[in-house]
Amino acid sequence: MSDWGKPSLNETIARLGRRLRLGVIGGGPGSFVGPVHRIAARIDDNYELVASVLSSDPERARANGRALGIAADRAYGSAEAMFAGESQRPDGMEVVAIMTPNDSHHALAVAALEHGLDVICDKPLTTNMGDALDLVTRVHDTGLVFCTTFNYSGFPLVRQARAMIRDGDLGEIRMVHVQYIQGYNYVLSGDEERGNADNWRLRPERVGPSTVLGDIGSHAWHLASFVTGMQFDRLMADVTAVVPGRKSDDYAGILFRLENGAAGNMWITQAGAGAVHGLCFRVFGTKGGLEWFEEEPNRLTQQRPGQPALLFERGGPGLKPEAERAQRTYMGHPEGFHEAFAVLYADVAKAVVARRLKQPLSTADRDFPTVEDGARAVRFMEASLESSRTKSWVDCRLKM
Amino acid sequence: MSDWGKPSLNETIARLGRRLRLGVIGGGPGSFVGPVHRIAARIDDNYELVASVLSSDPERARANGRALGIAADRAYGSAEAMFAGESQRPDGMEVVAIMTPNDSHHALAVAALEHGLDVICDKPLTTNMGDALDLVTRVHDTGLVFCTTFNYSGFPLVRQARAMIRDGDLGEIRMVHVQYIQGYNYVLSGDEERGNADNWRLRPERVGPSTVLGDIGSHAWHLASFVTGMQFDRLMADVTAVVPGRKSDDYAGILFRLENGAAGNMWITQAGAGAVHGLCFRVFGTKGGLEWFEEEPNRLTQQRPGQPALLFERGGPGLKPEAERAQRTYMGHPEGFHEAFAVLYADVAKAVVARRLKQPLSTADRDFPTVEDGARAVRFMEASLESSRTKSWVDCRLKM
Amino acid sequence: MSDWGKPSLNETIARLGRRLRLGVIGGGPGSFVGPVHRIAARIDDNYELVASVLSSDPERARANGRALGIAADRAYGSAEAMFAGESQRPDGMEVVAIMTPNDSHHALAVAALEHGLDVICDKPLTTNMGDALDLVTRVHDTGLVFCTTFNYSGFPLVRQARAMIRDGDLGEIRMVHVQYIQGYNYVLSGDEERGNADNWRLRPERVGPSTVLGDIGSHAWHLASFVTGMQFDRLMADVTAVVPGRKSDDYAGILFRLENGAAGNMWITQAGAGAVHGLCFRVFGTKGGLEWFEEEPNRLTQQRPGQPALLFERGGPGLKPEAERAQRTYMGHPEGFHEAFAVLYADVAKAVVARRLKQPLSTADRDFPTVEDGARAVRFMEASLESSRTKSWVDCRLKM
Amino acid sequence: MSDWGKPSLNETIARLGRRLRLGVIGGGPGSFVGPVHRIAARIDDNYELVASVLSSDPERARANGRALGIAADRAYGSAEAMFAGESQRPDGMEVVAIMTPNDSHHALAVAALEHGLDVICDKPLTTNMGDALDLVTRVHDTGLVFCTTFNYSGFPLVRQARAMIRDGDLGEIRMVHVQYIQGYNYVLSGDEERGNADNWRLRPERVGPSTVLGDIGSHAWHLASFVTGMQFDRLMADVTAVVPGRKSDDYAGILFRLENGAAGNMWITQAGAGAVHGLCFRVFGTKGGLEWFEEEPNRLTQQRPGQPALLFERGGPGLKPEAERAQRTYMGHPEGFHEAFAVLYADVAKAVVARRLKQPLSTADRDFPTVEDGARAVRFMEASLESSRTKSWVDCRLKM
Repeated sequence: MSDWGKPSLNETIARLGRRLRLGVIGGGPGSFVGPVHRIAARIDDNYELVASVLSSDPERARANGRALGIAADRAYGSAEAMFAGESQRPDGMEVVAIMTPNDSHHALAVAALEHGLDVICDKPLTTNMGDALDLVTRVHDTGLVFCTTFNYSGFPLVRQARAMIRDGDLGEIRMVHVQYIQGYNYVLSGDEERGNADNWRLRPERVGPSTVLGDIGSHAWHLASFVTGMQFDRLMADVTAVVPGRKSDDYAGILFRLENGAAGNMWITQAGAGAVHGLCFRVFGTKGGLEWFEEEPNRLTQQRPGQPALLFERGGPGLKPEAERAQRTYMGHPEGFHEAFAVLYADVAKAVVARRLKQPLSTADRDFPTVEDGARAVRFMEASLESSRTKSWVDCRLKM
Repeated sequence: MSDWGKPSLNETIARLGRRLRLGVIGGGPGSFVGPVHRIAARIDDNYELVASVLSSDPERARANGRALGIAADRAYGSAEAMFAGESQRPDGMEVVAIMTPNDSHHALAVAALEHGLDVICDKPLTTNMGDALDLVTRVHDTGLVFCTTFNYSGFPLVRQARAMIRDGDLGEIRMVHVQYIQGYNYVLSGDEERGNADNWRLRPERVGPSTVLGDIGSHAWHLASFVTGMQFDRLMADVTAVVPGRKSDDYAGILFRLENGAAGNMWITQAGAGAVHGLCFRVFGTKGGLEWFEEEPNRLTQQRPGQPALLFERGGPGLKPEAERAQRTYMGHPEGFHEAFAVLYADVAKAVVARRLKQPLSTADRDFPTVEDGARAVRFMEASLESSRTKSWVDCRLKM
Repeated sequence: MSDWGKPSLNETIARLGRRLRLGVIGGGPGSFVGPVHRIAARIDDNYELVASVLSSDPERARANGRALGIAADRAYGSAEAMFAGESQRPDGMEVVAIMTPNDSHHALAVAALEHGLDVICDKPLTTNMGDALDLVTRVHDTGLVFCTTFNYSGFPLVRQARAMIRDGDLGEIRMVHVQYIQGYNYVLSGDEERGNADNWRLRPERVGPSTVLGDIGSHAWHLASFVTGMQFDRLMADVTAVVPGRKSDDYAGILFRLENGAAGNMWITQAGAGAVHGLCFRVFGTKGGLEWFEEEPNRLTQQRPGQPALLFERGGPGLKPEAERAQRTYMGHPEGFHEAFAVLYADVAKAVVARRLKQPLSTADRDFPTVEDGARAVRFMEASLESSRTKSWVDCRLKM
Repeated sequence: MSDWGKPSLNETIARLGRRLRLGVIGGGPGSFVGPVHRIAARIDDNYELVASVLSSDPERARANGRALGIAADRAYGSAEAMFAGESQRPDGMEVVAIMTPNDSHHALAVAALEHGLDVICDKPLTTNMGDALDLVTRVHDTGLVFCTTFNYSGFPLVRQARAMIRDGDLGEIRMVHVQYIQGYNYVLSGDEERGNADNWRLRPERVGPSTVLGDIGSHAWHLASFVTGMQFDRLMADVTAVVPGRKSDDYAGILFRLENGAAGNMWITQAGAGAVHGLCFRVFGTKGGLEWFEEEPNRLTQQRPGQPALLFERGGPGLKPEAERAQRTYMGHPEGFHEAFAVLYADVAKAVVARRLKQPLSTADRDFPTVEDGARAVRFMEASLESSRTKSWVDCRLKM
């Protein structure tokens, strides 16, 4: 990711002669994820932010863009204006990052692909399966780079876990557990009414059929799948609102089986009153287990029958190349959420540069979450809701 | 429990003029739980161990009893001999502790009750529902004290959690999660064959219909129920053997609802390769959450929306009387598994002394796991197996 | 320690045909350490408590003894009466445990040795060097067993650390750090005046020249010495009362060098407002480091250059025999303070039985803290106070 | 720091109409701190990197600058050329960041101040006291902004600790302990010889009189001083090389007293074989204690006598404004080393903008480490070495 100990000080400049030109849609004042995207894009210095649409209100969008230092003529009032304007410029944007409410992802991503742009798109990819499969087809047909921001896969020790399991260090996988325990939406009731004015995340028409699965369940699903290197086969879910009177959901308990039959279990909620964040996973195979906790992301524990457990440290000894390429600084200096998000941006930069230069991309460099992952997450969410409704196990495989 | 800061140095002696006379069935050489029971009985000095049956082989049983310091004529060769012999003596045993394989609990407990003995019996109470209900009736009819050793309820901070929830410190309970992740039975396969000779825990005819639920799932169930102060209403379970070729099970994922509708989730396994022990719970109510982990049992975390989390320490400030009565020494000096087990022994001693002296027993002193808890655990196990077989939600309430 | 997986159910009975007869001096109602000693003596069932002196007031002493279940004629009113009475009996006490204020240790221990008793004596051994050396000589001359209760050396993972260092697993030792951070004496000031009535620990004439060093600094010293297997060579100390107006001290910062030149550092206080307990050590050698924390005593971390750290668990894989002999139950079931204290009682029992049977004692069985350790701790305290007074480095070796 | 929930999306642009123009000296390929500075400068987007000197070799310096995306004519070959070239430009650099070997800091900082530049300079400020005081005078005389990069003071929870202590939440401070336990320089011996070619940190003529104090001891000193809000009064140090045959030092044990008499203790080493990073502090006052550990920087524990401890989370409830202004994202999303470093860059940006606009700077906005802090750290190092040499307590106050 970084230039530390690397042959070049800036890999994108070394290969392309300049930074990639980035545009953003969404993430204006008050947004949580807007600053995260922009910090992530800046951290490794592979991008220059050249264009923006920073509000659904054209006037505010233009003012926000200028306030961010975007040139006045590229601080656009709408996505349409941005796609049109940038496509006319010889120095037009090349990559677009979409961080708008869920129900707008599909249309914006379609427009971006039609304009030949590589895309970084927030999850959940879409609010329905048809739209998701449509995007898969379009990405496949255009050959453009598409990253769905399952950003927890950017943590170096999550990549270490994936590499260890892929290399057989845990043997055959038998069990996996993921928790994602947020407290943001713990309030007593009636929050939808209060929230209607300002929180699209509690409005089903914007967020899609499930708030809790779209917001965080999809992350948990991706983590389980990414780390084990396996798809989900079937699941049994209990999805509900534990906060009375709420229209959107805030809890999901999910039993599942992976494609090899391994048994899984998830506990997902946004209604954990007082919870910090609580994203963690634990995996067991025939030869041992792995445990990781996002609140202490620089450490990974490997439990081993017959031997003391091992503690892996980010930056420390024993890491796989996949983990090492995702870190920037010395052992003991904690990296966190922004850096993990930045790993996706750096991965995309590599992929885009390779595409533009028609150079091959190594497997390791291709290991960021794709449009297919986004589509599978939509299938996971649909299957979970169906299972909860029918009170039965549901096949959640996605044929693409 | 202890005499620290208490008016009397030994409460049983203070009230009864002597220690209670205890007999044990099971727990001979090689047993894990035998020494645990005996240490637990000694820690608070309320019992004198006077009689024993320490093997199913009469000869070895008698030798083992003598090796433990039991008088030769009370180191019995069989439970029948013990019940008969002790009932003839003016100084005969008053309390019996049963720590034999699961399938023998019912008959031994019945005999003990028939001989007027108070009983401490290992879980699972029985291997079927009928036997369990039979014991409930007999205990009710005799008025004798009966404790099922759901020993994790003896940890002071588990009692703190129960008391906090009962007092409304967490508001209305909305979610509960319990994990119990053992690694003892992680081995690859064919262990039943190897194990047949020496491990009754892997033999269904001895252990009952489910190894994993009987051994540890019942503990997890009790912890969830004890801490929340609520019964389970219904559940959806996936119970299986993740170790191929195994006859007994080793994994259970369980979604459940408590009687108030709160949503629950359990992950239970004995096949976590390299796992240490991993018993923990996390509960959320409308006003906050609690988290406890048996491997660090002297600490309880209370998460609170809008305020920093609180860390409760055993022996430290802020504890409820229920927690304080279950501890023995200063803050920072860790107490552990043996002491928690000893809390049940101390509770039983208080109850037995009160029964014998026909004195009332305070609610706090009556808060140990009973025969009813044992029966409900059997219902929980039966319902879990039925749910896993039928792939549907099952009502798991027990009408007694 | 325990009979778990051991050839005999009770080693003392197996070898001696009975339990050892124990008497106690001190530890009446209100005492912290009294119940600890008695629980520790009971846990492994090597002792029968037959005689007691449980107050400096004869009347209360006798009543307390009876309340503890001691036979009326052996619930003595004074130590003199106990030594006299027991020495007349064919079944008289064989081992005495001394848990009285510091200034009485020497006289009681002398009397005990003169009556041919093996001794378990609380630390600090004495309040001056001459008395300490006198006890060393007497123990040497009589050949009796003498244990000074540096009880933290009984934790299985402390023994693991000692064995690892002795075996060279860390290479040559270069640095050691010990902290002992209590909060019991944090109060603002004037506590001596208030405390005079009821807390001998704050009265210099009873506690000796230093409260903080006698109470906890001596433990920290022993831990550093026990774990590294080395004596202290010289030290530079800052000993003071951080609580204004206090006559006794409550803080010590100590720089030191071990006999091989390794550099050490200690932070010791009883005035850490709100502190839990805070005893920990960290050692580095040429090949790695070890870290242990009493509040989570079942875990030991080994840091290794070039390899991920190892986590040792009590009861788990990779333990040395010295650690295994000091534990009682399965991995993951936490053992704590009482069990560690009980390890010293079990060690003494083995040594006493061997002495009585004129059998050899293995090195491992002889590895409990002795009268020499007690004397060296007194030297450490004296040297620390001298250093703090003279503001210079002081040689703290003890020639015996 | 960030625009999250702030009225402006970029405060520097909002106030100044553009980003600040930054130049860097040092930090070329292979440097640890170079990428850290540049990431820190980018994270909050207050700077545009316009000029560089990225090697002491002019040719390589120019090539490195271009490789980083610096315009060819501003990718300078030497500091002299940069100061000369930039001062001629209307759009010349305004702030310089110095990250060269220690012995060059003074001359570069003098030149920067003479050219009217605001300065961000790595610690240790200088290799001798005279140079340090000279810089203090020059900064005072010029009125320019000068930040010494004691970067751990940028962690939000370190600022929380400082604010809590300043607000009296801990009462009067009585004790402080700091550890900084690195393992980078653990190797056996002879490393200076090997290191001469490539590691200036082990060469006294470049690093100054003490490697361990300059590299990390100065950080520990600053943390103790910053958090308590107090200066050091006197100290007693043991500074040495625990790795035999090493010319530079690698260990320091330091006892000290703060200006109010509070007792302190430090353990500092770079020779902790296998250590991760190990920077932590613990402070006690009359009303409680605080504990923070850089490896888990998003959490701060407050221990309180008579009440359960409090756990503060970055982004969570109960934080002071000083902590809130230093954080960027939601609770539970870990921020780390880069973000803390970036806080200093953001602080400097605010101060520079205020200076340029002749606007007042709030106390909170002025709370970054200054040239005076840098000078005091040099005095701390000199006093430590003198104490170690003379084996006596040394007054370490600095009169400026």
